[in-house]
Amino acid sequence: MLTPGPLTTALATRQAMMRDFGSRDPRFIALTGRVRERLLSLCMGSESHVAVPIQGSGTYAVEAALGTFCHHTRPTLVLINGAYGRRIASILERIGRRVRRYETPEHVPPAPSAIARMLKEDPEIADAVLVHCETTSGILNPLDEIATVVRDAGRGLIVDAMSSFGAIPIDLRRTPIDVLIASSNKGLEGVPGVGFVIARRERLAASAGQCHSVSLDLHDQWRGLEANGQWRFTPPTHVVAALAAALEALEAEGGIAGRFARYHENCRVLIDGLGALGAVPLLPAQLQAPIIVTFHMPADPAFAFQRFYGALADRGFLIYPGKLTGVESFRVGCIGQVRATDMVRFVAAARAALESMGVASLAPSLA
Amino acid sequence: MLTPGPLTTALATRQAMMRDFGSRDPRFIALTGRVRERLLSLCMGSESHVAVPIQGSGTYAVEAALGTFCHHTRPTLVLINGAYGRRIASILERIGRRVRRYETPEHVPPAPSAIARMLKEDPEIADAVLVHCETTSGILNPLDEIATVVRDAGRGLIVDAMSSFGAIPIDLRRTPIDVLIASSNKGLEGVPGVGFVIARRERLAASAGQCHSVSLDLHDQWRGLEANGQWRFTPPTHVVAALAAALEALEAEGGIAGRFARYHENCRVLIDGLGALGAVPLLPAQLQAPIIVTFHMPADPAFAFQRFYGALADRGFLIYPGKLTGVESFRVGCIGQVRATDMVRFVAAARAALESMGVASLAPSLA
Repeated sequence: MLTPGPLTTALATRQAMMRDFGSRDPRFIALTGRVRERLLSLCMGSESHVAVPIQGSGTYAVEAALGTFCHHTRPTLVLINGAYGRRIASILERIGRRVRRYETPEHVPPAPSAIARMLKEDPEIADAVLVHCETTSGILNPLDEIATVVRDAGRGLIVDAMSSFGAIPIDLRRTPIDVLIASSNKGLEGVPGVGFVIARRERLAASAGQCHSVSLDLHDQWRGLEANGQWRFTPPTHVVAALAAALEALEAEGGIAGRFARYHENCRVLIDGLGALGAVPLLPAQLQAPIIVTFHMPADPAFAFQRFYGALADRGFLIYPGKLTGVESFRVGCIGQVRATDMVRFVAAARAALESMGVASLAPSLA
Repeated sequence: MLTPGPLTTALATRQAMMRDFGSRDPRFIALTGRVRERLLSLCMGSESHVAVPIQGSGTYAVEAALGTFCHHTRPTLVLINGAYGRRIASILERIGRRVRRYETPEHVPPAPSAIARMLKEDPEIADAVLVHCETTSGILNPLDEIATVVRDAGRGLIVDAMSSFGAIPIDLRRTPIDVLIASSNKGLEGVPGVGFVIARRERLAASAGQCHSVSLDLHDQWRGLEANGQWRFTPPTHVVAALAAALEALEAEGGIAGRFARYHENCRVLIDGLGALGAVPLLPAQLQAPIIVTFHMPADPAFAFQRFYGALADRGFLIYPGKLTGVESFRVGCIGQVRATDMVRFVAAARAALESMGVASLAPSLA
C-alpha cells in the first residue's frame, strides 16, 4: 500500500494482535505504560509533557485536543492550507469555540511573519493550531519558525502531527509546542484505532471540565491512567499491543532518524522514477515531506485515474486519489513497511499500467 | 478470560487481523457493507433500521447515540440500576441535555408501571434510555415490557445493549426500539475498537446537525457511508476485519440462539460449581443474564480478592472485581470463546486457589 495510512505494517506488528489481553490485567496496564513512555521519549517530551492515548481515529484525537485545550471564549487561530486544517476549523465551530482563520493556498506554507502580525493585532487569540504535514498536498509546514513566533507572542501552539510523528524529528525541548496530536497508523507504522495527544503537563492539569465530550476528555483520560494505569473506557487492546510492537520496530530501525532516512529515500526514488515517466510533483523539493507526494493530473487524454488505480491494484499497489481543491491530481504515499526497492517495483508497475492504458506520458498540461 | 469484554476471541477472528486493508479500497468498503448488513439482520432490523459503526469503545457509541438523538431542550428519562446507567446520565449532563432519573437498587429492575407513570406525569420527556444488561451486577432488565410502555406513551426508546447484543435475542420487528447501541467485543466476540448504533431510519434522517461532536455524529457518519461506502475518518481496519470474521463464527454457531444456549450453559455450570463451594450469586435466577455473574464477597477472613485473582491468573483464568456500590462482591464472566468444559476447569481452579489460600468456603456472611 502506498497510502498515507492505514498503511502496510510489519508482520511482527500484526502478530502482536494474536493475543487477547484483559483490559484491566496488570500485563496490559504495563504495556500501556510502556507505550506512553516511548511516545514521549520519541519527541524528547519526558520532562515537560504527558502522553495521553485516546480511542478512535486521528480525527478523534484532534477533536479531543481542541475540546480539551481550546479556550471557550477567546478565539483560536487556525493555520489552513489543506483539508485537515479546514477540518480543525469546522470542529472548533461545531463545538462552539471561536475561530480565526489564516488560509494560504494548498502549495503555500503559512508565513511566520504574518502569524506574528495576526497575533499582535488580535490579543484575544489564545492559541494557534498548525498541521505539521498536510496530507492533502504532502506539504511540510515550517513548524520550528511558527513555534517560535507563537511562543514569542505569548500564545500556545497546538500541532496536528498526524502524518509526521515518528517520521520527522520533533524535539519538544527545542521547539515550543503545548499540544502535539498524532495517531498509531502513520509514521509509527501501527494499525489504526488509537490516537494520542502529547500535552504540556501544566496545561493538561489546568484543563479539567473543559471538554465538550466525556469520551474525548483528555484531562479525565489522563487522570484515569494516572490513578491506576487503566483506560477509563475499554481500550482497543489488540491495536495497543500492535502499537507497542511497532514502537519496538521503530527503535530497531534507528529511531526517527533511521525511519526518516528510509522514507526520504522512498520519496526520492518515487519522484525520480515517476518523473522519468513525465510526472510532475505539485510541490518544490524544499516543501515536500517524505510522507505522500501529490502529482499533477497527466494531460494525456487516455489517462483516467480510476483505470490507473485499478491497473496498479492488479499489480499489487494501492495509491490515493487527489484531495486538492483547485488542482486535479493523484497521490502516492512513501510511508509504511515500504523500501526503495518497493518504490522501484512500483515505478515499473506504473510504467506497465500506463502502457496497458495506452498512455504515453504522465506529463501534466501545464508542466 | 472470564471477563465481560474484552474477552477471549476465536483464533480465526484474530487471524483476520493479519491482513492490512486500505481504508478506501473497494474490498474494505465491501467488508464494511457486509458487517453493517449482518448487524441489522441479527436484530431483524433490516426493514426499519440502519446500522452505523463508530470508532472507539462502547462508551463512544453511547455518547454518539445520546448526542445525536437526545432532545436539546426536552428531558431524557434515564433508567438507572448500575454504573452504566449512571454514566449515561452523566454524559447527558456533560453535553448539556436535560435528565430525569429513575433509579432502582442494583439488584432491582425498573418497574414498567413506574415508567408509564413517570412518562404520563411529565409530558416533556422525549425519550427513555435503558441498559439492557447492566454489567455492574449482571442483571437483565425487562426490555420488552419497558419498550411497550414507552411506545404506548408515544416516546422513543434508546437501549444500551452493549453486553447483550449477539448473546440475547432482540427482535426489532416485535420490540419497539428507536436506537440500539452495542460494541464489537462482547457477545459478538470481536476485538475491541469499534461500536455501532442501530437506529430507526427516519429518526437518523431527522438528526442532522444535532450532535455535540464531529467525530461522534452518527448522522454524518451514516451519510458518509451511504455516499460512497467509506468511513468519514480512518476506520480501525483490522478491528473491522476481525468483527466480520466474528460475525461469520456467530452464524456458524447457529446465530444468537446457538450462542445464547452456550452462554446459558456456561452460566449454569459456573453458578452450580461455585455454589458447591459456598458462593452465593447476587441475583435470583430469573434476573440473571448469562453474561456475567456477581457473587457476594466470601465471609472467610482468609479470603482476599487480590490473592484470589492472582491465584486464578496463575492458573490461566482472569476474573473481574465487583463494581456494586453497596455490596462487596466479585464477578465472573460467561461470554467469549469459553465452553462449559472451561467453566468446569475454572471451578476446579477456584477450588485449588481457595485451598492454597486456606479458605474453607466462598459463603458470604449474610447467606
